[in-house]
Amino acid sequence: LTFDFFHIIDILGTFSFAVSGTSSAMRKRLDIFGVLIIAFVTSIGGGTLRDVLIGNTPVAWLRDNTTINVILVASICTVFFGTYIKRFNHTLFIFDSLGLGLFTIIGIQKGMELHFLPGVCVALGTVTGCFGGVARDILLNEIPLIFRKEIYASACIAGGSVFYLLHSMGTDERVAQIVCITVIVVIRIIVVRYKLSLPSFYRKKDFL
Amino acid sequence: LTFDFFHIIDILGTFSFAVSGTSSAMRKRLDIFGVLIIAFVTSIGGGTLRDVLIGNTPVAWLRDNTTINVILVASICTVFFGTYIKRFNHTLFIFDSLGLGLFTIIGIQKGMELHFLPGVCVALGTVTGCFGGVARDILLNEIPLIFRKEIYASACIAGGSVFYLLHSMGTDERVAQIVCITVIVVIRIIVVRYKLSLPSFYRKKDFL
Amino acid sequence: LTFDFFHIIDILGTFSFAVSGTSSAMRKRLDIFGVLIIAFVTSIGGGTLRDVLIGNTPVAWLRDNTTINVILVASICTVFFGTYIKRFNHTLFIFDSLGLGLFTIIGIQKGMELHFLPGVCVALGTVTGCFGGVARDILLNEIPLIFRKEIYASACIAGGSVFYLLHSMGTDERVAQIVCITVIVVIRIIVVRYKLSLPSFYRKKDFL
Repeated sequence: LTFDFFHIIDILGTFSFAVSGTSSAMRKRLDIFGVLIIAFVTSIGGGTLRDVLIGNTPVAWLRDNTTINVILVASICTVFFGTYIKRFNHTLFIFDSLGLGLFTIIGIQKGMELHFLPGVCVALGTVTGCFGGVARDILLNEIPLIFRKEIYASACIAGGSVFYLLHSMGTDERVAQIVCITVIVVIRIIVVRYKLSLPSFYRKKDFL
Repeated sequence: LTFDFFHIIDILGTFSFAVSGTSSAMRKRLDIFGVLIIAFVTSIGGGTLRDVLIGNTPVAWLRDNTTINVILVASICTVFFGTYIKRFNHTLFIFDSLGLGLFTIIGIQKGMELHFLPGVCVALGTVTGCFGGVARDILLNEIPLIFRKEIYASACIAGGSVFYLLHSMGTDERVAQIVCITVIVVIRIIVVRYKLSLPSFYRKKDFL
Repeated sequence: LTFDFFHIIDILGTFSFAVSGTSSAMRKRLDIFGVLIIAFVTSIGGGTLRDVLIGNTPVAWLRDNTTINVILVASICTVFFGTYIKRFNHTLFIFDSLGLGLFTIIGIQKGMELHFLPGVCVALGTVTGCFGGVARDILLNEIPLIFRKEIYASACIAGGSVFYLLHSMGTDERVAQIVCITVIVVIRIIVVRYKLSLPSFYRKKDFL
């Protein structure tokens, strides 16, 4: 059952990251294959970097067709029903946050399986959750979004730390997972709703 | 003999990708080592990412000096005879397309050896063929060319799919290789000759 | 003792690269986590790429907390004492050059342990020394500094070649290391002091 829960959210996360990649690529008016590649990179970037760093190769998406098919479907849906999907921005946002949460958890759990230290596990979770979006922004030649808007990496690190704490305190794994995802989703909703940003630590012209 | 054929085209492809990297770097007026590094990355980027993804490490160019030497020679030739080489643009274009074709085939065949599924093999071939140019454009701080001009990735995916089909239908490997390279070269020639681009699927102001 | 020497300079190098990453990120006014991530990438980028290329996974910084802690401390110090640290620009420059030298040596020695050929070893050293800064500049959406200012990669390649030569001539390892670092530091000081750059090999409008 845990597997199913994971598997379903994994697919939802992949789907939603692919939708977000497709939208970004269409905003830059790339051709259809450019759009597919950006969708692909956004979806698999985080997990791929994690697998490469820990030496878990061949990386996950090479081992079966599910990921590729989910991305193709998500991308084609977005291309054809783009204007409709834009109305579901809230749904997408939730999916994206769910995906972020789950990918973070997967990263942390892989780290724990390999007996890495706490800080390392959280770093690995953050890499898994965030790198897809970073790679998308690099390819589209922008300063990665996570450095500019929305408290993306911060939500990830917060949720990941909570998960690690709960898990190491012996909390049931599934409970810890749900709490972690909730933390990430709630932080992101509050941030976007109230247009929060991290307190600026810059004095005027400090570093120019 | 197959080995020789492969080996020769591999070197030609490496050479031609190095020339294209050197030209791009010189257009940005980098210093000599910047130029060498861009040439290097353009040539080995695709194969390196492929080897890292499938866990085939140390990656190929670490194992002998051939690749490094070919790149050095190509780069130095381009620096000194740049204005002459520009006259051979058509020759370069052919080499570049040959290289693209061959690198794509190598990627697909590695995938098949590891019994990956068809879509995965074509994706791996595309990565091998295209990533060098993508890395070059990222380093030079441009939106990767494959997303903007020339139907690069598309040619790659088309040729790769043909190769996979022929090969799995039991066609002689060498024939399948030649057909694949021909498909890629011909698509690129037609595209550049007639200034084609993929049909735009954007309605006005759809995604701005 | 060699280990201690190495270990101390390694930590100094990591620290200094983290300071340089933090400064760059603050110049772009990223939020606090953006700053941490850039500091992190600058410090571990080179060693990570090296380990991934040679298949030495999980990569070094996953195996213990030292690196992460050093980077956190360096980054927080820079954030709080930024204006003071700017007065120590010369100290930082020395640290940065020391780090560059040491990371280059570590890369080369890993290559020699694996019996790679000379050119390959120097390339691996250069990757280890330079990639952190390259990744930082890519994330901050700039043409990597090493292609524009200061003879960074060139110093690296020069120092690395000297080290390889001395080492293969049977010179005591520690002596070779110190000579290599000295070469790199001295080249960089001379270059910055006298505002040198590599001779331009561009004729007017050659490649525009």
